[in-house]
Amino acid sequence: MAEKNISMAVIRRLPKYHRYLGDLLDKEVHRISSKELSDIIGFTASQIRQDLNNFGGFGQQGYGYNVEALHNEIGNILGLNKIYNAVLVGAGNLGQAIANYAGFRKAGFEIKALFDANPRMIGLKIRDFEVLDSENLESFVKENNIDIAILCIPKNGAQDVVDRLINAGIKGIWNFAPVDLEVPKGVIVENVNLTESLFTLSYLMKENE
Amino acid sequence: MAEKNISMAVIRRLPKYHRYLGDLLDKEVHRISSKELSDIIGFTASQIRQDLNNFGGFGQQGYGYNVEALHNEIGNILGLNKIYNAVLVGAGNLGQAIANYAGFRKAGFEIKALFDANPRMIGLKIRDFEVLDSENLESFVKENNIDIAILCIPKNGAQDVVDRLINAGIKGIWNFAPVDLEVPKGVIVENVNLTESLFTLSYLMKENE
Repeated sequence: MAEKNISMAVIRRLPKYHRYLGDLLDKEVHRISSKELSDIIGFTASQIRQDLNNFGGFGQQGYGYNVEALHNEIGNILGLNKIYNAVLVGAGNLGQAIANYAGFRKAGFEIKALFDANPRMIGLKIRDFEVLDSENLESFVKENNIDIAILCIPKNGAQDVVDRLINAGIKGIWNFAPVDLEVPKGVIVENVNLTESLFTLSYLMKENE
Repeated sequence: MAEKNISMAVIRRLPKYHRYLGDLLDKEVHRISSKELSDIIGFTASQIRQDLNNFGGFGQQGYGYNVEALHNEIGNILGLNKIYNAVLVGAGNLGQAIANYAGFRKAGFEIKALFDANPRMIGLKIRDFEVLDSENLESFVKENNIDIAILCIPKNGAQDVVDRLINAGIKGIWNFAPVDLEVPKGVIVENVNLTESLFTLSYLMKENE
């Protein structure tokens, strides 16, 4: 399939298709036209056809889309059929919320350990994990074939932790620290920036008055 | 100032300008050229000038930008000088992480209460708040001039809560529930969709192999 040169805008819409198709499956809907899909997702039917054509075009003229096949195929495109090993660094409230988040395993990410630098956190039991000492991050990453780190730490010191993780072989970072990380080519960073989201809400509220 | 018809792409870059300018202020840098700003933010100098021109153009030929003035002005554009009253609904790990999040007050959002529907949560003390019963959401919102709700609840039932909040007069929603909310015109929704972010990471990891 021609998966190359897909724009980030299209890629960021795929999880939404995946979610809506999953909801349809839950409701035992097995077949849907781009027009019907448009009504529930809110993208235009033409946008939907164009997006999905990027990946080979799953629809059949006069039939529409097979919901289950399309759901599976988008899952494959998103890499949800692969398993990655992850560590979570920073076991505060946000880290605990993420560790408890069921969608993580569903997306193929298997959290292998939680780490924290705070002596009062180390040794605590959170979910199925004992919180480990951040000092031992590198050796754990190397010994357990960890691919991904989830960063739930403050901005100060985040780059140092990232440098250590990358030296140890990490290939991807899900970053909740409000800082732009510097990483070498070949390492993926996906940021969740709550401040930027909040400031956007603030702007839109102000404009709306 | 001509603040209308600014694209969402520009608006979503403003918090980043605000953050970098704040960092510069912390380092006592008082003046900066678009070229220097470009080196640290990573946008092109031309993009920076174009973005900031949307709001009146703060730079002076041959001088560059006054860091503090620009930081303040972007803060004003983002509405950070205004105060909004907020309630947080869903006092689980994620809700607690958000309630503890200092950036919230800094952005002018004052959390007035935490609510939960779970009897085991109601009455608990979290930070400065006692968790209140979600049953009393509407009356609290009306009596305390609440503008904003932060939703940290599961997807099932989220729309019902939102309908009740809107009936009670809420004007903005910071939504962490993985669902597209239906709201009337005049109500702002800003979504933080962790699943979509995670699936994007998954896709990029797979593509990168």
